[in-house]
Amino acid sequence: MSWEVAEAQLAPIATGAALLGTGGGGNPYLGLLRMRELLRRGRRVHVVAGDELADDALVVSAGGMGAPTVSWEKLPQGEEEADAVRALEQHLGRRVDAIAPLEMGGSNSLVALAVGAQLGVPVLDGDGMGRAFPELQMVTYLIYGGSPSPAAVADEKRNRTVLADVADVYALERLARAVTIECGGHTGLAMCPMTGAEARSRCVPGTLTLALRIGTAIEEARRRGADPVEAVLEVAGGRRLFRGKIVDVERRLVGGFARGRTTLEGFGPDLGHAVAVDFQNENLIVRRDGEVLAMVPDLVVLCDVDSGEPLTTEVLRYGFRADVLVLPPSSVLTTPEALRFVGPRAFGYELDYRPAWQEQAG
Amino acid sequence: MSWEVAEAQLAPIATGAALLGTGGGGNPYLGLLRMRELLRRGRRVHVVAGDELADDALVVSAGGMGAPTVSWEKLPQGEEEADAVRALEQHLGRRVDAIAPLEMGGSNSLVALAVGAQLGVPVLDGDGMGRAFPELQMVTYLIYGGSPSPAAVADEKRNRTVLADVADVYALERLARAVTIECGGHTGLAMCPMTGAEARSRCVPGTLTLALRIGTAIEEARRRGADPVEAVLEVAGGRRLFRGKIVDVERRLVGGFARGRTTLEGFGPDLGHAVAVDFQNENLIVRRDGEVLAMVPDLVVLCDVDSGEPLTTEVLRYGFRADVLVLPPSSVLTTPEALRFVGPRAFGYELDYRPAWQEQAG
Repeated sequence: MSWEVAEAQLAPIATGAALLGTGGGGNPYLGLLRMRELLRRGRRVHVVAGDELADDALVVSAGGMGAPTVSWEKLPQGEEEADAVRALEQHLGRRVDAIAPLEMGGSNSLVALAVGAQLGVPVLDGDGMGRAFPELQMVTYLIYGGSPSPAAVADEKRNRTVLADVADVYALERLARAVTIECGGHTGLAMCPMTGAEARSRCVPGTLTLALRIGTAIEEARRRGADPVEAVLEVAGGRRLFRGKIVDVERRLVGGFARGRTTLEGFGPDLGHAVAVDFQNENLIVRRDGEVLAMVPDLVVLCDVDSGEPLTTEVLRYGFRADVLVLPPSSVLTTPEALRFVGPRAFGYELDYRPAWQEQAG
Repeated sequence: MSWEVAEAQLAPIATGAALLGTGGGGNPYLGLLRMRELLRRGRRVHVVAGDELADDALVVSAGGMGAPTVSWEKLPQGEEEADAVRALEQHLGRRVDAIAPLEMGGSNSLVALAVGAQLGVPVLDGDGMGRAFPELQMVTYLIYGGSPSPAAVADEKRNRTVLADVADVYALERLARAVTIECGGHTGLAMCPMTGAEARSRCVPGTLTLALRIGTAIEEARRRGADPVEAVLEVAGGRRLFRGKIVDVERRLVGGFARGRTTLEGFGPDLGHAVAVDFQNENLIVRRDGEVLAMVPDLVVLCDVDSGEPLTTEVLRYGFRADVLVLPPSSVLTTPEALRFVGPRAFGYELDYRPAWQEQAG
């Protein structure tokens, strides 16, 4: 089912995708501004389901790369991702037929739509993470058999780097990251050229629609004076883990990532407890009084308790009152193949993945 | 005048080019082993003068990139530079007709010959530095009008990165360096695709022949029991600045470069004095008791006092007895355009270039 993106959908998509982004994927407001400007200048973009892609279409995944904190000081110029796709087109000697979002994130959801609008091609209703993740080997297009090369990285000064051949997915991540850091910490990325049939079978399907539904539910709950977090849980599943006030944020830019830990002290039902949420661009693991409550690839989300607005890791600060939610990941992320790349051990935690998003007994 | 490279010429070319390399350009023995192996397997390579290149030939400059210290622990695999040229060929959609050496250096002179042998194309008798320099914007092919993109970087794991477009020569240097560091500190580089006419007019001409003449003069002097350093000065010009014993080497790997300072205490005619030689891969400046004696782009060379063997910066250590020589740079390097990129200020010294290689009055 194909739909044309309307300006009124941008804010709910950004909000819903920021929530799915689990703290990462870039700032929703910046993505919204970029896409809104394109629509107001008359550009159009369609979102298409996987089965609407021709089997032999050339599909390329695109999104922004870098620590979300960077875009706070160094605003994207707006052509980085389209330029990366153009560099890949030049390398392949062929124009792309559609864009597949790299990840769902406050900015990266709309950035994929913007690339579609800029290049005049549709955008797949789906993405390569079903959420946001910090590293490129965590993309489902790769996990399920895609080639890590060629890929292209472009910056706002029109530096265009093509990773023509890479030894493996980790080499793709390391080289693209090194180029991104050298370009100032943020670049546009185009990767995983694939057929329409491959994109369809390797993506996490339906995530643009899901983001729109989540964002719309939050907006409607606000209008009705209802609890927006309850509205999120109705659409996305999962549960509220903890309610507290942020009392500390440790954050440092290391190796091109925003790494750190957010500490919340409980109030209301959680008075007397504290949780710590580790993040690497995205939230990874929640511990309460030292005990692990939830872990990646479950979606760990911090939302403002009043507005339900998802809090991306670059805006976290002392005093915010937040609900910590855990939402179910797509089943595409919990296969044994996928957990090798996106489970807790892939992030250095000596833990086996245990889902925490179902309501627990007792 | 075209000539086919013979095995007996490899050692003198390596020695002569190591001398021209002013401490950098890689270890001569490693370059020699690579090229000797190719010849013994039946590969052949011709050295051609600039006027033997067809005006519209496609010429690409190739050489190794990285801190010379790295190759001491991480031996090159041997296909890196040829792979970089292949990546550039793929990007350009055309096979190269000849290789232009990037720089004269103990390893990089023979590496250019090896690439010619590997790809079955001749190698220009000339190079892009007339010596060795640490950074890419210092290449005469660029200084005299060449485009900094496209360029290609390849490592021993067959990671191939194409810098398809870069903002300027400094962006080329920064991005290629970032990729090189990420690849472990050493890569093969192919850059400056140009016509035969352009290569001829932008190169420092005749430097492979010059390296061979210098190396041959050193070997002959050794056989005759004569002073090899005197033999060098007869062929290359210049003079002996200082004779001393290395009493200290400060060396650190910073940003992908070997940076440091060598201190020598004089003996013989220089007893009671000390000189310090700063280097960034290559020797840059000589100070005696604090006074500047010679500076880049003059060729500052350290040679073993007995054998005349040039000492590259990665082998320097306490106790070596060395002559410090200063040789004239090619006039291609001392134009105002060139001094902007290769004069002392380009290396952070607040000095105007003053040649020091002529015998001084008084």
